[in-house]
Amino acid sequence: MSGSAAPQGPAKGSPGWIMYGEMAEQPAVLRRILADGAPHIRATAERIAARRPRFVLLSARGTSDNAALYAKYLIEVRLGLPCGLTSMSTTTAYGAKPHLDDVLVICVSQSGGSPDLTASTKAAREAGAITLAVTNNEDSPLAEVAEFHIDLLAGPEKALPATKTYTAELMALYLFVEGLHGADGAAALAVPDLAEEVLGRGAEIRQLASRYRFAQRMVLTSRGYGYPTAKEAALKMMETSYIPALAYSGADLLHGPLAMVDNISPVIAIVTEGRGGHALQPVLDRLRGRGADLVVVGPPAQVAGASAGFALPTAVVPEELQPILEILPLQKLAYEVTLARGQDPDAPRAMVKVTETR
Amino acid sequence: MSGSAAPQGPAKGSPGWIMYGEMAEQPAVLRRILADGAPHIRATAERIAARRPRFVLLSARGTSDNAALYAKYLIEVRLGLPCGLTSMSTTTAYGAKPHLDDVLVICVSQSGGSPDLTASTKAAREAGAITLAVTNNEDSPLAEVAEFHIDLLAGPEKALPATKTYTAELMALYLFVEGLHGADGAAALAVPDLAEEVLGRGAEIRQLASRYRFAQRMVLTSRGYGYPTAKEAALKMMETSYIPALAYSGADLLHGPLAMVDNISPVIAIVTEGRGGHALQPVLDRLRGRGADLVVVGPPAQVAGASAGFALPTAVVPEELQPILEILPLQKLAYEVTLARGQDPDAPRAMVKVTETR
Repeated sequence: MSGSAAPQGPAKGSPGWIMYGEMAEQPAVLRRILADGAPHIRATAERIAARRPRFVLLSARGTSDNAALYAKYLIEVRLGLPCGLTSMSTTTAYGAKPHLDDVLVICVSQSGGSPDLTASTKAAREAGAITLAVTNNEDSPLAEVAEFHIDLLAGPEKALPATKTYTAELMALYLFVEGLHGADGAAALAVPDLAEEVLGRGAEIRQLASRYRFAQRMVLTSRGYGYPTAKEAALKMMETSYIPALAYSGADLLHGPLAMVDNISPVIAIVTEGRGGHALQPVLDRLRGRGADLVVVGPPAQVAGASAGFALPTAVVPEELQPILEILPLQKLAYEVTLARGQDPDAPRAMVKVTETR
Repeated sequence: MSGSAAPQGPAKGSPGWIMYGEMAEQPAVLRRILADGAPHIRATAERIAARRPRFVLLSARGTSDNAALYAKYLIEVRLGLPCGLTSMSTTTAYGAKPHLDDVLVICVSQSGGSPDLTASTKAAREAGAITLAVTNNEDSPLAEVAEFHIDLLAGPEKALPATKTYTAELMALYLFVEGLHGADGAAALAVPDLAEEVLGRGAEIRQLASRYRFAQRMVLTSRGYGYPTAKEAALKMMETSYIPALAYSGADLLHGPLAMVDNISPVIAIVTEGRGGHALQPVLDRLRGRGADLVVVGPPAQVAGASAGFALPTAVVPEELQPILEILPLQKLAYEVTLARGQDPDAPRAMVKVTETR
């Protein structure tokens, strides 16, 4: 099943073929988590729930930080637990010794190999926290130092821009948070087939990509569950095409950066079907009122009201699962824009797969 | 004293004269907080410390969100309390009902008039949190709903880009956090005179500004206490000049966006004298190795090793107070670049002073 989108894909060795293949694997990875990973995730969630954490801290960098932000929304909305993203440098650079009794610290990392994440997780565990690592490598240093570990089961990721590990992180974190409040997350079972359908619509993406080939900059916006998608899409666009892509929550966009949006700054809005999308509506109206070039990724009716867009099957998926679908066309958009600009999405300048920040 | 930098300033009614005047007021505002505001801030901190908060959540948007991030570093490093920035939409859009016993919720807002901040503060108070509002208007709705209030004493801010209220927020939050652990924050007494000295060096800023007049984009980076400065400087640059300015912690920059940095993407690094600056060093070396146009705001020795920069009197101020000085040349840089591009820093397109996000 994993190669179903591959026939139209690039030949082995041509620019972007690795990233293309990994994007195409996503439905299979999601199925694997649901079939093989879910029981362990649920058991882990039960053991952690029994410890009754009162506060959750999330640690991650880059793409995984966007998955962590998604988990933050889930934890606040679904569990009602106060939650924060950590500033790792406060422990690794400043040697802060926080009091972490009753605190659940979740570290998310594709490689599990970043030294600063490992050091801050070790420090958190020593300070009394319940520590959980979510990685794609159960033999990694991070998996080693954390008390609990969830494996993403995504297989090796070789392209420098992370794609399949991002959606794997979203799915694993969704199942984990549902497990924390005793739910089975069954709504997620519909997602892999929908992901496959979305990934199969390559012609639509190529058409959208022509819009951004010569763009000097790009603004992405959303609210609620779609906001991590906006951030991850901006990161994907920047690290592959080098187009400066700025992500703002709709509310923050009105606090200043809107001055930057005009008919030469295209805007991509990620609109969930649900409360986040509803809260974004005034921002969309304001952007349309300014004559912005507005592309919507979201419900068909919202796409119809925009300059262009990519419609998602939002009606059949609860809002909190829509982010797994939202990022797919945006990953492919970054890929297509990068190819159109004559660059190689597999090998952005200056990137290494495991970033050794300390 | 407040008008000491004014003689070289623009004539009344000319572009940017309001922002210029408010930037020049900053030393006077800082003195006012230290003289008139400090006793109330200290008393508030003592009352809150007696309630023994175990976690801290910060809520803010735009410029105030960058001040909140500064407070997050202070709280984690100086107090060892776990701390998070809230995603307001989880309460205002999703109706989340978090459990907030023992949680201190700090809301930072210049106007105190943003409906979503007021609503989420009210909800936090009802959920058992200790609530503190930090605003420039003691009669504001936010000051009204919070249990405690700290007034910024900055006088009315009329330019759309916030300047004097940002440094006022930093100073007030510094004194508050010091008060929480029973310290008097006396190191801050040196800051107003140093701020005045820095603001007086307008010729250096005008020279730096020529570097960015035709820039298509800009990257700002820092680590630790200087990171909020990078974010605030990026916001200031975007909302006045509309140059896309991307702020990354040094660690995150290595996780992808570095691909965007080359000899046409200038980088401004905010280097603290202290552990944050030390942790940034490998990033600076990497940037220099790539031939980036690197401008440093920070210690004189660091400026000497860069393409250009603005030296700060970091040797005489503890690292945690350096952010109050760091932002000053960057505010003025945004102002000068905007004027050089023929735009008016006082009145960016599309901005309104109180943003009514709900």
